[in-house]
Order: sequence, then C-alpha cells, then structure tokens
Amino acid sequence: MTGVGTLRIEDRPVPTPGPHEVLVEVAAVGVCGSDVHYYRHGRIGDFVVEQPMILGHELSGRIAAVGDHVDPTRVGQRVAVEPQHPCRRCRQCMAGRYNLCPYMEFYATPPIDGAFCRYVTIDAEFAHPVPDSMSDEAAALLEPLSVAVTTMRKAHVQPGSSILIAGAGPIGVICAQTARAFGAARIVVSDPLESRRDAVLRFGATEVIDPMVDDVAALDPQVDAFVDASGAAPAVVSGIKAVGPAGHVVLVGMGSGDFALPIGYIQNMEINVTGVFRYTDTWPAAIHLVSSGAVDLDGMVTGRYDLEHVGDALDSDTDPGSLKSIVVPK
Amino acid sequence: MTGVGTLRIEDRPVPTPGPHEVLVEVAAVGVCGSDVHYYRHGRIGDFVVEQPMILGHELSGRIAAVGDHVDPTRVGQRVAVEPQHPCRRCRQCMAGRYNLCPYMEFYATPPIDGAFCRYVTIDAEFAHPVPDSMSDEAAALLEPLSVAVTTMRKAHVQPGSSILIAGAGPIGVICAQTARAFGAARIVVSDPLESRRDAVLRFGATEVIDPMVDDVAALDPQVDAFVDASGAAPAVVSGIKAVGPAGHVVLVGMGSGDFALPIGYIQNMEINVTGVFRYTDTWPAAIHLVSSGAVDLDGMVTGRYDLEHVGDALDSDTDPGSLKSIVVPK
Amino acid sequence: MTGVGTLRIEDRPVPTPGPHEVLVEVAAVGVCGSDVHYYRHGRIGDFVVEQPMILGHELSGRIAAVGDHVDPTRVGQRVAVEPQHPCRRCRQCMAGRYNLCPYMEFYATPPIDGAFCRYVTIDAEFAHPVPDSMSDEAAALLEPLSVAVTTMRKAHVQPGSSILIAGAGPIGVICAQTARAFGAARIVVSDPLESRRDAVLRFGATEVIDPMVDDVAALDPQVDAFVDASGAAPAVVSGIKAVGPAGHVVLVGMGSGDFALPIGYIQNMEINVTGVFRYTDTWPAAIHLVSSGAVDLDGMVTGRYDLEHVGDALDSDTDPGSLKSIVVPK
Amino acid sequence: MTGVGTLRIEDRPVPTPGPHEVLVEVAAVGVCGSDVHYYRHGRIGDFVVEQPMILGHELSGRIAAVGDHVDPTRVGQRVAVEPQHPCRRCRQCMAGRYNLCPYMEFYATPPIDGAFCRYVTIDAEFAHPVPDSMSDEAAALLEPLSVAVTTMRKAHVQPGSSILIAGAGPIGVICAQTARAFGAARIVVSDPLESRRDAVLRFGATEVIDPMVDDVAALDPQVDAFVDASGAAPAVVSGIKAVGPAGHVVLVGMGSGDFALPIGYIQNMEINVTGVFRYTDTWPAAIHLVSSGAVDLDGMVTGRYDLEHVGDALDSDTDPGSLKSIVVPK
Repeated sequence: MTGVGTLRIEDRPVPTPGPHEVLVEVAAVGVCGSDVHYYRHGRIGDFVVEQPMILGHELSGRIAAVGDHVDPTRVGQRVAVEPQHPCRRCRQCMAGRYNLCPYMEFYATPPIDGAFCRYVTIDAEFAHPVPDSMSDEAAALLEPLSVAVTTMRKAHVQPGSSILIAGAGPIGVICAQTARAFGAARIVVSDPLESRRDAVLRFGATEVIDPMVDDVAALDPQVDAFVDASGAAPAVVSGIKAVGPAGHVVLVGMGSGDFALPIGYIQNMEINVTGVFRYTDTWPAAIHLVSSGAVDLDGMVTGRYDLEHVGDALDSDTDPGSLKSIVVPK
Repeated sequence: MTGVGTLRIEDRPVPTPGPHEVLVEVAAVGVCGSDVHYYRHGRIGDFVVEQPMILGHELSGRIAAVGDHVDPTRVGQRVAVEPQHPCRRCRQCMAGRYNLCPYMEFYATPPIDGAFCRYVTIDAEFAHPVPDSMSDEAAALLEPLSVAVTTMRKAHVQPGSSILIAGAGPIGVICAQTARAFGAARIVVSDPLESRRDAVLRFGATEVIDPMVDDVAALDPQVDAFVDASGAAPAVVSGIKAVGPAGHVVLVGMGSGDFALPIGYIQNMEINVTGVFRYTDTWPAAIHLVSSGAVDLDGMVTGRYDLEHVGDALDSDTDPGSLKSIVVPK
Repeated sequence: MTGVGTLRIEDRPVPTPGPHEVLVEVAAVGVCGSDVHYYRHGRIGDFVVEQPMILGHELSGRIAAVGDHVDPTRVGQRVAVEPQHPCRRCRQCMAGRYNLCPYMEFYATPPIDGAFCRYVTIDAEFAHPVPDSMSDEAAALLEPLSVAVTTMRKAHVQPGSSILIAGAGPIGVICAQTARAFGAARIVVSDPLESRRDAVLRFGATEVIDPMVDDVAALDPQVDAFVDASGAAPAVVSGIKAVGPAGHVVLVGMGSGDFALPIGYIQNMEINVTGVFRYTDTWPAAIHLVSSGAVDLDGMVTGRYDLEHVGDALDSDTDPGSLKSIVVPK
Repeated sequence: MTGVGTLRIEDRPVPTPGPHEVLVEVAAVGVCGSDVHYYRHGRIGDFVVEQPMILGHELSGRIAAVGDHVDPTRVGQRVAVEPQHPCRRCRQCMAGRYNLCPYMEFYATPPIDGAFCRYVTIDAEFAHPVPDSMSDEAAALLEPLSVAVTTMRKAHVQPGSSILIAGAGPIGVICAQTARAFGAARIVVSDPLESRRDAVLRFGATEVIDPMVDDVAALDPQVDAFVDASGAAPAVVSGIKAVGPAGHVVLVGMGSGDFALPIGYIQNMEINVTGVFRYTDTWPAAIHLVSSGAVDLDGMVTGRYDLEHVGDALDSDTDPGSLKSIVVPK
C-alpha cells in the first residue's frame, strides 16, 4: 500500500531472521477489516500510514530458516504466525500483558510491514506449529480466532453462559462459533441483514435478532455477556442494556468515534465494560478449537486471491456474499 | 418527605421486628447526596417518590428489641446499620451479590422508608456491632465508607497503587482516605474548588489538580485506577484517559444522564469500566479502618441537626464549608 | 438405613412443603459412593449415622405440590433436585458460598433424610426444571455432574487446557467428560484397572495411563491441572508432581485419612491445591452440557433397581462392569 | 563459599554490564536463611552448591555503569536490586510469572553468584530506584519484604482480614508488618519462643500464641488466611485447621521434607493451599510501604558485618537476640 487506495507490488530482499527469530515462507493471509480500513482511509484512529507499508497480519506458512538461537530442526515446520513483536521488558510485558506493550511492533500497523508478501520474520515462539490436518487457510485464520478467544475470556463465557453478539460479519461469526466452543448455552446474534443472520445460524448462533424490528435491550431473560462486533453506536447501547446484573461487556468492533453509553445502567447494574486489543497466549487454544472441530474456519472462506489481486481481496467485503477472503502470495 | 421540597414530622407506631430482625433506636443519621436529590427532584433516575417517604440511610443506633430467632443478649448493643433487605433467594443473592437483588428493599429508596426517625427494623446480621471507642456519628458514616471500600475493591487498589479521584465532595474525600488505607502510594484528586482541594489534602490526597487549569488526561505517569465521584462528564472523560493499560475505572457519582465516553481509548488500552451500586460485606472492614485510625470519619462532620431541622440538614450542602451533616433524631 | 449394612422399607407420611418449598415425587435416584460408604461404615469422617436415615441425594422427579410462596403453575414440572438446604444468612451464604454454610442441611448427610423414597421436599429454586428431552436418570445424575462442573471451575479448565485425572470410577469418568466439555485439549486419566481405562477412553479421555506401569509424575509436557478422583495417596502425590508451574490441583475423592503431600514441589512451583465440597450454581450449566450432547449421562447407567433392591444397588459397585446404578422408587 | 562451612575472599574482575544491564556497586546485603542453609548444608532440596559460589541476594547499592541500551543518566542512582534474571521468552515469562521461569538465573542459587561482593550486574529494570530517605540497609531488605508482599497477595489479605502467621523469625516478623500494612485487622502470630513473641508484638502482631501451650487449631473465630513462616510440620497442620471455609494458606517457610497435611479438612472447607517462590512486580509496592512508614525495616537490623566477617554474619542466627544481619562489603 503506497497511499489511500493505491497498491504496488515490489521486489524486496528476503529478510534475515534475528537470533531468536524464524523466517516464514507465507502460505495464506486473511484479509481483515483493519487492512481494508487502512487501504480506504489511510489510518485507524491515531495509527496513520505515512509511508509505503505491506498490509496483512493473519497468516500461516512454513519455516524456511531460523536464527542462531532457534532449534534448527524447526525448518520445514508448518506454522501459524502470531504477528506481534513486544519489547519483553516494559511493565506490561513483564505483567503478562504483552499485547499492551507501548513499544509493540505489530504487523501491518504503521510503520511495520505485514504479510501480503512471500517471506516474513517473527520471534520463534510466535510461530506456532499447526497439525497436518489443518489447512493453510484455517491456520491463517487462527489470528481472528485469537481475537474471539480473548473476547470470550474477557466476557467470562463458560459452560451454560448466555451471550449477545452484535454484528454477524466475520468477527461476529467467529465469536458466535467461539462462544459455542466455550460452552455458551444461549447465543443471540443481532444483525440488520437477513443474509448475515441466516449465515450465523449455521455458525453457532442459537437465536438471531433483526435490530431494526426487535428491541435488543428487551431480551428476556437478560444475558450474562454482550460482545459488540459491529462498531455501531445503537447496537452498543441496546446491547449493554440487554446484560443482567454484574454482567460483562466486551467491545471488539473498531468504532466510528466516541458516543454516549448508558452510564446509569452500567452503574446500577455494576456492568463491567472493557475492550479487546489483540491477544496473549491464544494460539494453542485456538489450534485446539479448530483441530477438535469445535470451530470451523475453512467454512468461512468465501474468496481466494493471489498477490496480483490483493486489491480485489481488499474490496471483496462489499460483496454481500463475502465472509472471509484469503490471499495466497504465490 | 411528602413531596418535592416538603417535609413533615409524623407520629407513627414503633415497628415490631420480624423473627430474624432487630429493632434499632436510631442515634445518628448522615445526610447523603441521594437524600438531597430525592428532596429536591422527587426522583433519581427510575426511582420516583410517589408517596410520603422517610429519608436517610446512613445510620447507627442501639438495639432496643429483637425478633424470635435473634440472640436476646444483643439488646442494648450499639450497632451500625447496613440499610438493605435483599430477598436471599434470587440468582444475585445466591451468588453473593445481594446488592444487586432485583427484589431489594433499601432504606429511603421509594417506596421504602428510611431512618430520619426514632426507630427502625433491620435483619439481625445487618446490625453490625461497633466498639465503644467509635462515636455514633462515625458509626453512621460507615455507610458511605462502605461505598468507598467497595470502590477500592473494584478499583483493585492495593499497596503501591496509584489512583485518580475526580471530585472532592464527601464521597471523594472518603474515597481518598480509603485509598490511602488500602495502601495507594499516589492519590491524585481533581476538583475545581480550591477549598475542597485544600480539604482533601488533609484527608489522604497526595496531589490535587484544578481541572480548569491542568489537563487531567495528561497525568504522567498514568494511574492504575480512576474513580469518579463527581458525576461530571468532562471529569469522567479526562479521568479515563489518565488511566494506563489494563487499568480500572469505577463510576461512583450519580450522573446527570448519559454522555460520550472515550471508547477508542477504552478498547486500545483494555480499560475496565464499571460502577458501584451499594455494597456487600463491607461493614467489618469499614469498622476496622475507623477503629485503627486509618480513616477519620468524625473529622468530616461539619453540622448536626435534630429532627425538626432535617430541612436545614438537607440544604446544608449549599454551604461551601459543609462536608457532612448529621441528623440526631431526638 | 437403620445401621451399618442394614436397610428397612418404612411407610412414612408424605411431607408437606414449606412456604418456599416444593414437594417432589421422586423419579430416579443415583447411587453415590458416599451412600455406599455410609451403608458400609456408618460414617464419613465426622459425619456419623446415629439414627435411621434415608440414603440417596442424586435425584430427579416431578413437582407434586408447592408451598404458599411458590408459583402454582410449577405443579407437574419435571425437575432435577439440588439436594441442599443452606441457612441463607451466615457469612458463607451471603458471600455466595452456600455450599460451605455451617448450618447446611444436606440430603443423606446425618441426620438429614435423603431420596430413596417416594416424596421429598426442597426449596423451590433448588428444583431445577429439565427439558423433556432429558431422561429421569440423566436428570438425577446432574448431581455428580455438578461436582464435576465445580471441579473444572476450580481447576481453571478452559479451551486448550491439559488435565490429568486420577481414577476412572464414576467421578473420574464424569470429570473426563466435563473436562472435554470445558474445552480441555489433553485429558489424561490414570487407573490401575484396564477395563476402567478402556471405558474412560469412550468418555472423553485422550490418553490413559496405568500407574502401576508408568510414572504419572513424569508426564511430559506437564499438565495445567490435576484432579484426584481416586482418594489414593500415591495417586495424589504423583498427580501433583505432574502439574506445571502455577497449575491447579483439585481433590475430589473422599480420602482415606491424611497423608504426606509433596510440599517442596507445591512451594517451588506455586501449585494451587484445593478441594471440592458440593457446589453452587451448577445445575443450569449441567443441564446445558447434557442437553447439548457435550456430556452423556445416560450412557453411564449400568444398573436399575427398585426400592426393594436398594441393598443390591448399594452393593453393585463391587461388580467390575458397574459404573453407575439408579434406584427407581416405584 | 567454597564448600560446606568454608568461605574465602577472592579478588575477581569487576563485571561488565550487558547491553540491557547496569553495574551496581553494592552498599548493603541482608543475610537470608537460604544463605545460611547453603553455607551449612551445601544444598536446598535439588539446588546443590557444586562449585565456589558467592552467597547473598538481598542487596542495595549505587549504579556505577550502564550497558549500551540503558539510560546513561542513571549512573549514580541509588537502587535496590531484584536479584533475578528470567529468560523473558518461555511460557511462564510471557504469562507474567517470570518468577517461575525454568531458565531463571537467580543470585546465590547454584551455580549463579550472589552479592557478598563489591560489584554485581543486573537487568536495568530490576535495579529499582529508592528515595534518599531510605537507608541502604532498608533498601537491601526490600527483598524479603517482596516475599512478604507476594505472600499477602496470595493470602488475599485486604482491609479487615484476619491472619495467622506461624513463626516469628525474620520472615514471620516482616509478614506481620506487611499484613498490617495490607489492612489486616487481626494478626495472630504463633512461636514457641517468648522473646520472639514479644518482638513480633512490636512489629504488627495483634495477638501471639505459644503453640506449646495453646491449640492453634482452636482459634475462634477462625482466620481468613494462614501463612507458614516456620517450616515446622505441626505448625502447618494446626495452622491449616485454624482457617475458615474458603480461606487461604500460603507456605513460605522452606520445609524440612514432606509431611501429612489435613486433607479432609482442606476438602471439606475448600481451603486454598499454595506456596511462594520469589516474586513478581513487588519492589514498587515495597518501596512505598517503607517510605510511608507502614513497614519498618531499619528496626529489624540487629547486626552489621564487613566482608571479612561474612562467616560471623551467617552464624548470627544462632544468637537468640538476632533478627536480621547485614553485610556491608567495604
């Protein structure tokens, strides 16, 4: 990406892995809403693309080389990449919250390059081995599944929980599946599009709501947790009001600015509101969820593109039938 | 209280305690901002005063009689009253969150009568014995201290923590003291009034800020927790932005309606936002904090009134030198 | 049960439900190891059977009558019974730990009668409605499933966890199933009996170990949690040593006295050791686990007995092919 | 230390700090029971001294030089040293539990050298700046205070808690002080020596018990938490039985082998038992506790020794009046 709406394919040297890194030959890369947002708007909040940057941060591949301190027998291993590079020394890193490291270098977050390319490097322990039974595409989509796993942890979902999810886009669908895998008994998903509501019923939702017709805040009984995967203010407000006393609200959707929240309700019901920003220690759990069949990632892929057609991949979200697009950098 | 701004003293029969209750002869009652709010506006949010109601819910007294299932040797015991009557059978009660019981009967919350009177009844285990060394007034103020104890628990304050408190009114002052008692190392309090800033420095604050002059959101280093005891939208917004990654926000002040929160900041920093609605299991801790000298409640009392002057007590908050008023129902 | 090893069938009046209670016509009762232990030894630790007592505490049935404060439309409802009667007023009850209430009256714990009979009473909220799709027998076995749900919560099992379970008796088998339902990726079960090891592989175990042959403490990699469902000292000691740093140990099996634990290991690895004593808030989760097919209780039933043959039911555990016996009090 | 009971002073080159390290000129070093144990027995459990090793890991000093990636203005800064060097890459480190890193290099744990010397190196973020008001000796003793802070966190001590501590040696005394600083209302300390019981009453204990005379297990009411700082089997067993339902037990004392624990009690009361192995993120809290006067470390120092007399320092624990000895390596 060389600017808003412009892309260019470049030849660059294959990077050399550092002492604790591996070189990964990229096999598949998912297209994320944040990639699309950078492509269309050049920024997400305070993160601004000011120089050419490679997009893409949902990826799998094969280890092609290893640094000096990495087990050399890992060359050839199929891996899913956790696309972050924390400092390991700051207060957040040392507290186990490396996702919140202020010195983080994260794929496809300006000015760090991402994965719509042939080769990338990553710290060895962030190249997670995947079983042979898992496709390259599913392995790439462990990244958004990691967001969903973090979301369910923060939403305190456990067997028997009830949950409301706003938005049946890719993140909403993957959250519905993950909620089911965490044991949620009641999984309500709201979305104004009928096609999306139909789709999410195949991916774990036990009920769907059209928020244009029914009042989400009137859910009876109230739910234990609400996850926003829509970024839409009315969905967030009505969703919070659907949560019962001491319940949990997790905001995942990247919002369109600040808006009013039902503060009196949050106080009187002691609702816990938080957000999700990336993840820590999720790949092993995500790999198990896919391997065991609890979560279906392959079934979410609706389009495949090569490097020449990354622009088409980035635009594919405008197709109502599109759920998740994959770039294969051959 | 017979209507907005109108009060009347009535003779009523002394109530009879139920089998698990005690009858308490009231010794002292604190005036709370919620009493004042009902008196001036006739409502707080959805709670509306529709018939005559006795105000007052911060109280101490002496056990005058006990119900059939209560230890009769308790008669004569000095007690502080936890002014709530939960159902003990609903999901919230059985989960230990009796403060969130939907069937709660709470003193001075319509239509339940409160404590500006001579005698009240309460469940025996909510009449907490206080030591002889504690004054009736301090014993009454264990109620707002209980709010502060709950707030510090929800703010995860522990030895070494840093905390920002917005508002140096009665709740802000008692929160500052409680934060110090929980071991907070840095206690910043913001208030636009110089007299209040001066006062709170004597009650535990280690720094004060005038939010009209300095940018609260620019606190450096950021704090671990923010407590709003102001109910003011700008204070809440700037306070949230003063919190570091994975920090805690607790909203105590009863707000003036809903307003926009910095949602992007909450997401990117994974800030945890919640509110405080009453308390569970706080009186024993509060009694220790006062008995040990860690919290000074007597020093907060700035006015004393008898039953004939409850109206003056309710209006005393307009006096800039007033911090906490007490009604002694003799 | 009239004494050690002696039983008698008596005619007694049908009990009358209290104001908050329901009368349940019993449909099925599971035989628990604790019933067998009382029958054979007359005591479990400090709990001693000193007068005739009805055994049985795993039960389902149909509501036959309700007390004054209970919704009368519940008559006829099929329910699973949570067989405890806490005081609702002590510190433990008010903290949400009603299982630890020192004033608890628990079915079939001396001197409280249990459920090997036609009719019992229970607090209305402890008579949990079950769906039509669930058999009476499965509904009865929600009680041991509740123990397993509590165990998994205390073991902090979540998607991707690894767990070791010692003992493949009824509790071990139900724990293995529940671990799988909680998302555990690796479920190792140790038992010296080959037939039991074979059985548990059909109920969720991913690996089995014969502790007479292989060293459980040498599991590699170490597990996140260890659950003892054997009560055997060597199993507990080796199981604890199989847990990795900061892992969890939950002791479920009623032990045969105290024995030495690997204290140095617990300290150096900061292992968390605790026990399970009954349950709180588990029936809704358990009902979902069975309804969704995640846990199979019907498949565990290996014998059915009427009231005349309760003695045979209590002795059935000596049959190596027996897993779980049911008494149908017709 | 060159062998069991033998010491030698050697001249060695001043170490060079690595890129992220600082060089610290040592000012004061506390003598810990583990130093004494290595000196007398040559081992602690599986940690065996097989080659000459410098003892000492409780230390303060002044930064004499910094590595390439460290802020050079830190030279001259007075610091307390957190004497550990975790790998920062393993699962434990990345989860925030760097104290449990299996690749840990810890001062004075074989074969890593400690601090009875003039100069040491440490990672920059483990050299914690201390205020001018804090003595070198108190700064050194922040290390055992860090153990106590971790202990109180694991014991869930908060304002109003009750706690029993077994053993009034240095760790027991510092735990009593720290319990008071965490807000404990009742702090019972048991020790068979009258002189130690008298001493701990000056350092935070609210009650003392002679376990040779009174039954610790009979404490009424029971305590919320028990901390063992004695390592003595009878103290641990009776201490556990003094804990109420759902209470916490933390084992700090390095034990003399494994012994029987009251397993039935742990199960029936759902007691949580764990150990403390070093610490994470404690120095800032510890510095505040000392700076604020909540914990007095200077008052615990009963002996001072230079490098020539380290042997005497190590033997000082046999003096009944000795509480804490300091080595000043001049």
